[in-house]
Amino acid sequence: MYAITIPEPGGPEQLVWAEVPDPEPGEGEVLLEVVAGAVNRADIMQRQGHYDPPPGASPYPGLECSGRIAALGPGVSGWAVGDEVCALLSGGGYAEKVVVPAGQLLPVPTGLDVRQAAALPEVTCTVWSNVFMVSHLRPGETLLVHGGTSGIGTMAIQLAKAVGARVAVTAGTREKLDTCAGLGADILINYREQDFVEEIGRATDGAGADVILDNMGAKYLDRNVRALAVNGRLAIIGLQGGVKGELNIGMLLGKRAAVSATSLRARPLGEKAAIVAAVREHVWPLIEGGDVRPVIDRELPMSRAAEAHRVLEESGHVGKVLLVRE
Amino acid sequence: MYAITIPEPGGPEQLVWAEVPDPEPGEGEVLLEVVAGAVNRADIMQRQGHYDPPPGASPYPGLECSGRIAALGPGVSGWAVGDEVCALLSGGGYAEKVVVPAGQLLPVPTGLDVRQAAALPEVTCTVWSNVFMVSHLRPGETLLVHGGTSGIGTMAIQLAKAVGARVAVTAGTREKLDTCAGLGADILINYREQDFVEEIGRATDGAGADVILDNMGAKYLDRNVRALAVNGRLAIIGLQGGVKGELNIGMLLGKRAAVSATSLRARPLGEKAAIVAAVREHVWPLIEGGDVRPVIDRELPMSRAAEAHRVLEESGHVGKVLLVRE
Repeated sequence: MYAITIPEPGGPEQLVWAEVPDPEPGEGEVLLEVVAGAVNRADIMQRQGHYDPPPGASPYPGLECSGRIAALGPGVSGWAVGDEVCALLSGGGYAEKVVVPAGQLLPVPTGLDVRQAAALPEVTCTVWSNVFMVSHLRPGETLLVHGGTSGIGTMAIQLAKAVGARVAVTAGTREKLDTCAGLGADILINYREQDFVEEIGRATDGAGADVILDNMGAKYLDRNVRALAVNGRLAIIGLQGGVKGELNIGMLLGKRAAVSATSLRARPLGEKAAIVAAVREHVWPLIEGGDVRPVIDRELPMSRAAEAHRVLEESGHVGKVLLVRE
Repeated sequence: MYAITIPEPGGPEQLVWAEVPDPEPGEGEVLLEVVAGAVNRADIMQRQGHYDPPPGASPYPGLECSGRIAALGPGVSGWAVGDEVCALLSGGGYAEKVVVPAGQLLPVPTGLDVRQAAALPEVTCTVWSNVFMVSHLRPGETLLVHGGTSGIGTMAIQLAKAVGARVAVTAGTREKLDTCAGLGADILINYREQDFVEEIGRATDGAGADVILDNMGAKYLDRNVRALAVNGRLAIIGLQGGVKGELNIGMLLGKRAAVSATSLRARPLGEKAAIVAAVREHVWPLIEGGDVRPVIDRELPMSRAAEAHRVLEESGHVGKVLLVRE
């Protein structure tokens, strides 16, 4: 088969479409014929040599894909050859074929085509596990989402609205904020022109955000704690603004608040399967009912992964960038 | 009645036993004839002028007591005049009488006398709410308790052992560590001579602590995050080592870990009542069954509260210091 390989860490030009051995499904795994993969910021870090695949994972980039089941490994039940699915991967989604533990498969939701489904696994699993399973966002509460037009952001806005929460977003342009409003966001904050702590305070009668979904890490840590409500929960899923930051524990204690940080990729199989099962139970009906949809910025041929990485690095996109098999 | 008053913030000598107006129970409150109060570190901060009582609370120190119900305010059911109880207070426990919302009352556990019960409310509610309700310590997991011989520490060791967890403690002397071992602690760390991160690693095959109960705040923040296991939870309940510290968010994310910080005193009535109800349901049977007991360092007459504060400030005590009505 062909896959995107990374002969040397570096810029987007290091993504090389090359012939590689076919993968074979082991115990509890299935082989997928990939229809589309999707691009995540973690793929860029992997390309740069800052984020090695976990032990046992495919060496090729790609944390999610959609496709058709081409073969079942021993011990797999509940799935059949030919099923159209999407999957959470620990690597290898930028390829013609990939193997994946059966617990990380999801059916293509009714109403979507198999290509579009590639946009779903990472964002639904990340948002559901952090905002709902860890941070327990409840109806009537306020969620603040940083980077409202990212793949994660566009899904977080819709899921939070679907469960009856109020949603605040930050973004860097008026156009991006308009897109967030179109997805249901109630409170729009331009982080280039406004202080999000002040704005979230103003919009909540001084109460603050009950849950914050953050991809900035250190750079926003202090402001995020200030923006939290009493009993607030800050969920950090990215470190785009740095790794180490000053935590005002006194303020955290005064608010009886909590800070959590997670990633999906390194989780053991059982935890991933539990998240995927929860997403299938809680998120899939919202997609099939039309309340929530994948937001897709563009589709590019898989062999042009370098171009897709440049799009993410320039941050001009809205939603997911897909890599489609030619 | 008489109460310990604080005419001016300052040292222990500022605690003055003086005649003050009797309190009167309002809607949903009861009036207690106090038998004993207990001393908490927060009382010292209040005496020093660093921790004002929340709005509506008694101006006198004392966050817990035991006694007999002397009168019921309007709307109180389930309790009767003469009942022997202990209570979680937002202030006023260093006094002959105090009023308390009925939701913060607990019966004196069978097998204890009313005086001893004054040692229970703060430690049981703090440990249960943080270690179990927030951090969900499970059987087989490892809890690290800093300051194992404090009132909180002695209760945390016993409760964690009672639910089947493994317990590590830090303390500053061999004698204190022996006391912790006598209460059931499995892993004994002398923080003056040993690095608790190394020791907890050694004792858990490198895994780390699943839950850490911390009273040091900033000073221990980085080491606590290093000592956490994957999926670990750090529960901060005190700031004895400072308010602001550097958080390694990258390490937190790599471990999918969380940091929470809480206090009891400022919580709204409903949250306090929920914690008290959970303590009555889960902790009281352990005390009545003999698995868990209050650890009492000494009893002093209430008018000698200054002496009790000096004991806490010198940190030579083990367990709770009670202030008993003469």
